[in-house]
Amino acid sequence: MSKIILTGDRPTGRLHVGHYVGSLSERVRLQNSGLYDEIYIMIADAQALTDNAEHPEKVRQNILQVALDYLACGIDPEKSTIFIQSMVPELTELTFYYMNLVTVARVQRNPTVKSEIQMRNFEASIPVGFFCYPISQAADITAFRATTVPVGEDQLPMLEQCKEIVHKFNTVYGETLTEPEIILPSNKACLRLPGIDGKAKMSKSLGNCIYLSDEEADVKKKVMSMFTDPNHLRVEDPGRVEGNPVFIYLDAFCKPEYFAEFLPEYQNLDELKAHYTRGGLGDVKVKKFLNKVLQAELSPIRERRKYWEQHLDDVYDILKEGSRVAETKAAQTLHDVRSAMQINYFDDNSLIK
Amino acid sequence: MSKIILTGDRPTGRLHVGHYVGSLSERVRLQNSGLYDEIYIMIADAQALTDNAEHPEKVRQNILQVALDYLACGIDPEKSTIFIQSMVPELTELTFYYMNLVTVARVQRNPTVKSEIQMRNFEASIPVGFFCYPISQAADITAFRATTVPVGEDQLPMLEQCKEIVHKFNTVYGETLTEPEIILPSNKACLRLPGIDGKAKMSKSLGNCIYLSDEEADVKKKVMSMFTDPNHLRVEDPGRVEGNPVFIYLDAFCKPEYFAEFLPEYQNLDELKAHYTRGGLGDVKVKKFLNKVLQAELSPIRERRKYWEQHLDDVYDILKEGSRVAETKAAQTLHDVRSAMQINYFDDNSLIK
Repeated sequence: MSKIILTGDRPTGRLHVGHYVGSLSERVRLQNSGLYDEIYIMIADAQALTDNAEHPEKVRQNILQVALDYLACGIDPEKSTIFIQSMVPELTELTFYYMNLVTVARVQRNPTVKSEIQMRNFEASIPVGFFCYPISQAADITAFRATTVPVGEDQLPMLEQCKEIVHKFNTVYGETLTEPEIILPSNKACLRLPGIDGKAKMSKSLGNCIYLSDEEADVKKKVMSMFTDPNHLRVEDPGRVEGNPVFIYLDAFCKPEYFAEFLPEYQNLDELKAHYTRGGLGDVKVKKFLNKVLQAELSPIRERRKYWEQHLDDVYDILKEGSRVAETKAAQTLHDVRSAMQINYFDDNSLIK
Repeated sequence: MSKIILTGDRPTGRLHVGHYVGSLSERVRLQNSGLYDEIYIMIADAQALTDNAEHPEKVRQNILQVALDYLACGIDPEKSTIFIQSMVPELTELTFYYMNLVTVARVQRNPTVKSEIQMRNFEASIPVGFFCYPISQAADITAFRATTVPVGEDQLPMLEQCKEIVHKFNTVYGETLTEPEIILPSNKACLRLPGIDGKAKMSKSLGNCIYLSDEEADVKKKVMSMFTDPNHLRVEDPGRVEGNPVFIYLDAFCKPEYFAEFLPEYQNLDELKAHYTRGGLGDVKVKKFLNKVLQAELSPIRERRKYWEQHLDDVYDILKEGSRVAETKAAQTLHDVRSAMQINYFDDNSLIK
């Protein structure tokens, strides 16, 4: 059986270093592993519209930004199919039929839906489209016959719901859909980066993100303003590295060789952490080091992004061609789904036999 | 502005005389009035699947039965476009985007949804697809830019929901969709025929229907077994006409000329009712008259049905061509909808400008 990946992002803002360590770098690694036959990377505009219906412009404007971020990170259109969700209408048709296989009560019990509703302050007024997004996501995954879905642990309930839909469909209509497996990030420390203000999540509205598209000077400014251990007031005070964003970022980005290059007085991150913990190491020094590490990691990304910004026509063609390829694949699955449901009335004339 | 009708039926069984007086005869009248530019009549298989997902065969088998019933009643494929809902995938795409414009709480408040859930004994386990059918119905109506939707009074809340969606869409994305108007049946007495057992509604599962496809002998047998006034035991007893199915059927089907033809001792229905009310008129006599009336009304329908049953290839072609025409119309609306939402990224290259 082919090994197929589906993954993607909602185009509601430019991607940031949290996305990079949480998923983008892993995606590039999987892409270049040679282990996968097909890789689909979806710019989920239709999903973004489920809770941004009144701000379509925001979603529209970010499609190209996300595509640029993908290309900048090393997603290679020769190896991965980058496409726009709404350009594959077959996904809405699959969603429509899967909606018959799931009860309202079951969706209400989905923990991811519950917490997203809480996070977005929806409560009584959830849009139906947003409420149904686990079903829509099952359509996305199965349309491409994805065997492998690389997501964070918080998305496990979504995968469970998808598997249930696959199971129900195959039971009712006969073996048709492929059951996906989740693949969790290899580096658990990187699951989720806090914001530069120490808040649990980077978020555009909090203004606490370092974007992949940020210029060198912006990155430096943000790093130097980062929240650290609030009790580490003087250099000689002992400091905490646990929960300290600066060290969490270093855990995520620092490679051993950066010490020789930027901070040769330490052998490795453990030594740096030990010094900080016992006192005598100032935040400014650590931040300067983090800035150099981040610049080293981000500058090739930034350069590739600038290249693609100069070649928007090519980006447009990549999205157009990717969407065409994705639609062809989804149409094949939809064909199988309609055959299984026996609603392919005009494929033969068995309706009148 | 063009005057456009959308109407239809769920193919979950053959159509019966209740459908005929409740909607089919009215539809034929509207069709032949010459007042409408376009008439779309939808065999709503996709909607039927929302609460019959595990019995697709039942839905599939009844598509042709419903088409035959339409043609038998006088729906003319030269004047009306008969099509199968699932053959117009654009409807699922419109549903998907309209779902973002309606809250879960709003659908829960829809009285038609409430009562349908009660009628179908769903309660906690409503399929999401069934829950969302007011939204799907709004997609059906707007896809054809219907100005006129002939339905029963019980469907008024569905029309209200549709108008709200039209209003919301046009407000958020700019004037795009057409607001429909309801048209109630001209003969209010005909809104809903009871079953032959006196139960409020004809239903296949209760076995209390007279089908348009019933043979002459079956119709007679059903009429002669009809429930009447349970207190009208002897011919000389006074009888009640109110709530008496035999008289309700006569109200719906009897034309004045049938008295001269079949029961010349009475001038009209009022005289017959008066006699029944004061006593001295037996149920058998009234039923025999009703049988003759029904046979007179149903025999041309039965004959046309037999003709089309001999020409299933033509019925198949009518459905195929109707579905093609319907899809073309819906695709045009979807194009307008996507343009309004600005998710028509590849229609021009404005995405990269």
